[in-house]
Amino acid sequence: MSIYLDNAATSFPKPESVYRAVERAMRHAGGNPGRGGHRFSLDAGREVLETRETLARFFAVEDAARIVFTSGATEGINLALFGLLQPGDRVVTTSMEHNALMRPLYALQQRGIEVEQVVTGRDGIVDVSELQRACRVPTRLLAIGHCSNVSGSIQPLETIIPWCRDHGILTLVDAAQSAGHLPLSVARLGVHLLAVPGHKGLLGPAGTGFLYVDPELRLEPLLYGGTGINSTMRTMPEDLPERLEAGTLNVPGLAGLRAGVEYLQQQGPERLEARLNELVDRLLAGLEAVPGVTLYGPARGERRGNVVSFNLDGMDAAEVGYRLEQQFGICVRVGLHCAPDAHRSLGSFPGGTVRVSPGIFTRPEQVEKLLTAVALLGDPSARNDKE
Amino acid sequence: MSIYLDNAATSFPKPESVYRAVERAMRHAGGNPGRGGHRFSLDAGREVLETRETLARFFAVEDAARIVFTSGATEGINLALFGLLQPGDRVVTTSMEHNALMRPLYALQQRGIEVEQVVTGRDGIVDVSELQRACRVPTRLLAIGHCSNVSGSIQPLETIIPWCRDHGILTLVDAAQSAGHLPLSVARLGVHLLAVPGHKGLLGPAGTGFLYVDPELRLEPLLYGGTGINSTMRTMPEDLPERLEAGTLNVPGLAGLRAGVEYLQQQGPERLEARLNELVDRLLAGLEAVPGVTLYGPARGERRGNVVSFNLDGMDAAEVGYRLEQQFGICVRVGLHCAPDAHRSLGSFPGGTVRVSPGIFTRPEQVEKLLTAVALLGDPSARNDKE
Repeated sequence: MSIYLDNAATSFPKPESVYRAVERAMRHAGGNPGRGGHRFSLDAGREVLETRETLARFFAVEDAARIVFTSGATEGINLALFGLLQPGDRVVTTSMEHNALMRPLYALQQRGIEVEQVVTGRDGIVDVSELQRACRVPTRLLAIGHCSNVSGSIQPLETIIPWCRDHGILTLVDAAQSAGHLPLSVARLGVHLLAVPGHKGLLGPAGTGFLYVDPELRLEPLLYGGTGINSTMRTMPEDLPERLEAGTLNVPGLAGLRAGVEYLQQQGPERLEARLNELVDRLLAGLEAVPGVTLYGPARGERRGNVVSFNLDGMDAAEVGYRLEQQFGICVRVGLHCAPDAHRSLGSFPGGTVRVSPGIFTRPEQVEKLLTAVALLGDPSARNDKE
Repeated sequence: MSIYLDNAATSFPKPESVYRAVERAMRHAGGNPGRGGHRFSLDAGREVLETRETLARFFAVEDAARIVFTSGATEGINLALFGLLQPGDRVVTTSMEHNALMRPLYALQQRGIEVEQVVTGRDGIVDVSELQRACRVPTRLLAIGHCSNVSGSIQPLETIIPWCRDHGILTLVDAAQSAGHLPLSVARLGVHLLAVPGHKGLLGPAGTGFLYVDPELRLEPLLYGGTGINSTMRTMPEDLPERLEAGTLNVPGLAGLRAGVEYLQQQGPERLEARLNELVDRLLAGLEAVPGVTLYGPARGERRGNVVSFNLDGMDAAEVGYRLEQQFGICVRVGLHCAPDAHRSLGSFPGGTVRVSPGIFTRPEQVEKLLTAVALLGDPSARNDKE
């Protein structure tokens, strides 16, 4: 029986209710939402609307219409950046970002957008005053990940976002590793753009996600096409969500996403977060105790997401990952995790790390098995059985 | 028991095997494909690869890596147009296109791309010599729908596409209404770009689709982000499909799409097409016999897709649709169907049409019920019971 400790890539398993919601939507809400007035279309439209409203409640979004569905966080980030930025605009970001944020920014640099990347400390956390200094040059947007997918480092959004708002700087938060795991309130934070994947902490299926768009923003669409309304217009409609949702939505996926969020609500997000924190703390304590282990990111006791990265002396990350699965049936991710600059900040470039990310269905004894396995791999006498 | 005759919007129901494949992938292939070397990720990667290869066989694509997964035909068309065209390029298209094609073209016009729309006859079929005349002005791309979503009109691709290839003109085919219903061979046609939805004729779930990209083309990505490979590069990798597939793919949806295509293969696409043709022919013959019915598109006996549009004298399309459902439980689509110019060509603008689109699970007696219902609605004495 394999042990899955790669929930930062995608959460697995999903709650039983997610599987059932997807199936139910396929079987019983099989129309095309917003396309036609018959019951199959209306049923599908209701699925979509209910998911939008569930997400609005969960993230404290006042107007659910500002939630635009995407195929994932990557599309949401691309929509935000390409839909907002014009040549001459300046963007401030950090060295901890995933390629889902950095690669669109690099592409935009080619189109005359200025990008400054603030380098974080070795804990992966950006210094607020350095960020503020970078923002002294007139800046249109701060684009920042909430929680690192490499080290679990959590950025101080509660300080940064209100400061940006006060200084007329727009903010985009990549919540790929935090949504569902850490509290996130649009109303409280005042973030302008929030990109969220459906298939990670929200426990929905792959192929889902959304971008929250502040009411004061008008984005250019990333996709142009049919919206089911205003079809004689040559341009996309002005209203959200239609303006930014061309084409047929992933109705079964969105039904599953709603079930995922409802599961979080039923279980209590605080309780789940506390449980994950315990697992992460045990992981950190256990790994610290293994000779030859180097840990990355925030020190134990500091807040972090459900991601722990480490290396083992004398063995590259790929080999550790390979042996964890082959010898112990434990599945983790190794390498650069699509965030090369993060490793430069953390001190793990170019070799990358072994990344362990428990999920809400991870049991304490699975963490113990991982710790035992790492200890065995770190023991020189155990290494001799390497073929 | 409602009768669903809106398969041009989305096919419903799906084969039982599609529902099961989606569920199986969620439960048993729950990793993130291409992200990690452990079995959960590899299992998910295998799902994706097998779907790619199944589609390659079905559409006679030599190299499956040229099949780029998208969230649907709309994203595929947008990726093709925005990824290919540069200011100064000229595009020829027709008056029968869906907004999924026209709206990106209108947006591109604002960026200096020239668009010429060739008006079709009232049968919705473009005249080949007029298209060729439009292409005499140096043209980069012909962008054309295979089959109209309003009238079922089928464009003569077998003549047009090879002629374009001979004349150095690239071709993009929007196969939203034909894929799965009409034979489509990339190898035989020589089309350069083919945009296909998963959730219509291919019987897969919403949220799936693909763009085929000819080996001689290098498109700019629509989405930038993580690809699971070459993560230290600031640009997207050169190789397909990764270059154009940033972010996490919709694995359960793609597993369902494969099951849909396998169902078509098992049943025999020719047999299913013949069956659909019989239903469409019966629809046309039956509607022709109802006094006051105006039919649009190709005459009976001519080739057409699984779409029949009509109007009833003295009643607007919306009312016909409403009464068909309220009085008879029959679900059709009414209006402009996101293709306003098509109605201008067909003679049904601005009122639109009542659109009936049977699917492979439509039974002949359901078509008879529709015909009886329309006859009753068209009978002045029956109209008196209108409240």
